[in-house]
Amino acid sequence: MKTPFLYSCLLGTFMATAQPSVTVFENYIDKNGARILSDFTSLLSIPNVAADLPNINKNAAYIQDELEKRGVQTKQLRMIGTPPIIFGYLPTKGATRTLAFYVHYDGQPVNKDNWVHEPWEPVLYNKAMTLGGKPIAMPKAGEPIDPEWRLYARSAGDDKAPILSILTALDAIRENKLTLTSNIVFFFEGQEEAGSVQLRNYLEDNHELIDQIDLWMFCDGPVHQTRQPQLVFGVRGSTGMEVTVFGPSRPLHSGHYGNWAPVPGQMLASLVASMKDENGNVLIEGYYDDVEPLTVRELEALANVPEVDTQLREELGLADTEGNEPLYKRLLYPSLTIRGLSSGNVGDLTRNVIPSTATVSLGMRMVKGCDPEQMQEKVEKHIEKQGFHIVREIPDHDTRMKYPKIALVERENGYPAARTSMDDPFALQVVKRTRDVAGDQLVLLPTLGGSLPLYLFTDVLKKPAIIVPIANHDNNQHAENENLRIANLWYGIKLMGALMTMEK
Amino acid sequence: MKTPFLYSCLLGTFMATAQPSVTVFENYIDKNGARILSDFTSLLSIPNVAADLPNINKNAAYIQDELEKRGVQTKQLRMIGTPPIIFGYLPTKGATRTLAFYVHYDGQPVNKDNWVHEPWEPVLYNKAMTLGGKPIAMPKAGEPIDPEWRLYARSAGDDKAPILSILTALDAIRENKLTLTSNIVFFFEGQEEAGSVQLRNYLEDNHELIDQIDLWMFCDGPVHQTRQPQLVFGVRGSTGMEVTVFGPSRPLHSGHYGNWAPVPGQMLASLVASMKDENGNVLIEGYYDDVEPLTVRELEALANVPEVDTQLREELGLADTEGNEPLYKRLLYPSLTIRGLSSGNVGDLTRNVIPSTATVSLGMRMVKGCDPEQMQEKVEKHIEKQGFHIVREIPDHDTRMKYPKIALVERENGYPAARTSMDDPFALQVVKRTRDVAGDQLVLLPTLGGSLPLYLFTDVLKKPAIIVPIANHDNNQHAENENLRIANLWYGIKLMGALMTMEK
Repeated sequence: MKTPFLYSCLLGTFMATAQPSVTVFENYIDKNGARILSDFTSLLSIPNVAADLPNINKNAAYIQDELEKRGVQTKQLRMIGTPPIIFGYLPTKGATRTLAFYVHYDGQPVNKDNWVHEPWEPVLYNKAMTLGGKPIAMPKAGEPIDPEWRLYARSAGDDKAPILSILTALDAIRENKLTLTSNIVFFFEGQEEAGSVQLRNYLEDNHELIDQIDLWMFCDGPVHQTRQPQLVFGVRGSTGMEVTVFGPSRPLHSGHYGNWAPVPGQMLASLVASMKDENGNVLIEGYYDDVEPLTVRELEALANVPEVDTQLREELGLADTEGNEPLYKRLLYPSLTIRGLSSGNVGDLTRNVIPSTATVSLGMRMVKGCDPEQMQEKVEKHIEKQGFHIVREIPDHDTRMKYPKIALVERENGYPAARTSMDDPFALQVVKRTRDVAGDQLVLLPTLGGSLPLYLFTDVLKKPAIIVPIANHDNNQHAENENLRIANLWYGIKLMGALMTMEK
Repeated sequence: MKTPFLYSCLLGTFMATAQPSVTVFENYIDKNGARILSDFTSLLSIPNVAADLPNINKNAAYIQDELEKRGVQTKQLRMIGTPPIIFGYLPTKGATRTLAFYVHYDGQPVNKDNWVHEPWEPVLYNKAMTLGGKPIAMPKAGEPIDPEWRLYARSAGDDKAPILSILTALDAIRENKLTLTSNIVFFFEGQEEAGSVQLRNYLEDNHELIDQIDLWMFCDGPVHQTRQPQLVFGVRGSTGMEVTVFGPSRPLHSGHYGNWAPVPGQMLASLVASMKDENGNVLIEGYYDDVEPLTVRELEALANVPEVDTQLREELGLADTEGNEPLYKRLLYPSLTIRGLSSGNVGDLTRNVIPSTATVSLGMRMVKGCDPEQMQEKVEKHIEKQGFHIVREIPDHDTRMKYPKIALVERENGYPAARTSMDDPFALQVVKRTRDVAGDQLVLLPTLGGSLPLYLFTDVLKKPAIIVPIANHDNNQHAENENLRIANLWYGIKLMGALMTMEK
């Protein structure tokens, strides 16, 4: 399936020159709003669950065709049984950098019962359903469009909005005879919501297409909860472990043996309690040792992040939070979370027994500097310090008779954090140009709390990668009634246009 | 349903005189072994699950008839929809005490799939199945009987063996023209395995039959694990509580919020860990305060209890036990057991979330002196000392916003421990007479670890009550392939005969 891509075919119309004002894109939207929404509706009408390959291929063909129509050289990167990657290329004469726009065209599976409308039959609303919005007809050409309208459909926010933004920005560039200022790569993945299982292989197998890229822009995720635009420079890494401790080899009568037989739930509680203090700080030795210190620019950026804690605490019914520090500060440290606890039964199934095991599922998030396996190693050292003998499978009788405290540890695979320097010259150019669209409202976040395999780009390909979100934070991503606020689509078009034409 | 019982009808044959030698019963068994096993088989052939009222009534009629045949005055105590109690009475001229024999004729429900034979089709084995035993034919009259044989059937051990023992002892007494030395009451319950729900009501409604009883003997449970006979003077009480602690009002993404949102599993682990030290001692203030000290006689008895810890630890795969003290010593203190822990998910269902709640189910066993509600009160005080605000229902938003740490506490009903004094004159008589059968091997236990509503007799009726077990400890009570070791049946017959004829 690997055929060399024809870089030789250049597009004559695009030339690298000085950057245009963002007003050009605003005017284009003003004149073409109705058509843009209609185009978006067409894109959103094709079901796009990664496992549904026939429809995934329809999406790929549709998007590839739309890119081709706009003069983009395209190619589907393919692996058997996997959604293809749509690779697009726009070479620019005299360009000294290559910018890649990553978007994913697949969406989360749906539970139709929970949706007000069919997920792939887009419906326009005059405001958010949750604010009492009502469905309205699609606007005709020239009719005014309220930016607070919402378009409801699967992937409206996550993640087809950037695709439509890119296509529309290309239209605006062409109509206004603007010139591109970079070589541009489009890298549209079709398996993101199914875990990007083949992403590493796709990158390796197609390295001759990939190596030239100077900066990756991940057009995914939402803007800030305040609705202010944002750029994000990293993600936390993710891994986990499951730890099971052992009491008697079979559940025992809690009367006949209670106070004598070791109780695994008690042993586990003590172990878990030893891992964190009352303020939510991890007590495992060295857990924070490898955390890379923040740069001056990251500290400055953090100081300017709008406060969201009050709103979030109210929303989540929380009188207090761990460490009594703002969310964005806490995300800059590795975390240790009890994702699950299980021993015996509670509720109606409770029985008067001493269960024979107790299990905790530990979720771990890492920041720049922390290696997943080394972090797991530190947790295991801590478990041993608490007096446990660590085993890799259910202990046999001899092991049980030898060690009073036994912990079965099962490590999960994971991947590290990624963070692009806020001083990276390409990233600085993107920040500067984004300010042309977003103004002083632009929020710069050193990292998301969540995880994406961004390290594949920053640490494997060794290229800067930043997250460039478009969607509103209340887009119901991954859930029913997903939607895009029209103002965010307008923002996306302007931003994509601005980035493609930014100062050389 | 309440009709006065006819105490006036006396049995002429039984007269209170000096006690006979146990040899009388041994000889009777030697001569009648085959018939006794055949009688036991008939009794065990009637299905006896408490919920199966038609069959329960067959059991009651059969047992009542067998008692009547042996000159016992009988009466079924009845409540609608409940298994009847078979009440039997043997008045003895000149008797100065009334002894009651409690037995239950119902058995645990069965899962036939797990049984080697039909549960209510008794099969004789030449030794225990677990030791490679094989089924054998029932012996004919005069054929030798190996006391290591086992009879397999539901309720063979729990709890029809004492019934057959009593019936056979009555036969031996009559054949040998022995005289009874006490007024004797038989109180055969049919709902024990279903929780003795109506026992209190039965006792209250029939107090005119009950009040005269001087000593209750609970013929239930197994003898010591060493196969030595035992008498047990009490049980622990039992209650429980469920405690749920709260994090965010909905499960949160562990990446976006991990290190900031309070993690209920962590809060719960700290709470649970604070309740007990590494040695298994409860740290809740006052938990041991009300424990009644052991008497000199109880301490003496304990010193003579055979050591079972080594065997049990080997059987249960335990390198160590709580407090490093022998089982029987540990059972003399109240216990606190983690019966269940639950938060989020573990294993294949693990998700990267911060769950919104975590729950622990606490089981509590009490010893003499501890009141269940006061013990629950102490646990709640401890929870409050750990900084939790206690609520009785799911907290609302205002409560959540006011208290950083909230614990929903749900108390279970329970009942107290019961312990009969080892210096009780009636109990001393039983101990002395049991030694005639058991010799120096007799084990005297101040209490079982488990719980029975014995307090109804000791604390409500205010009469001494002791447990007089017959079955082998490996009788598979409550499980599949329940069985009785024939030696234990012989012991039961001798013991019942001896007790009914003990010194005035």
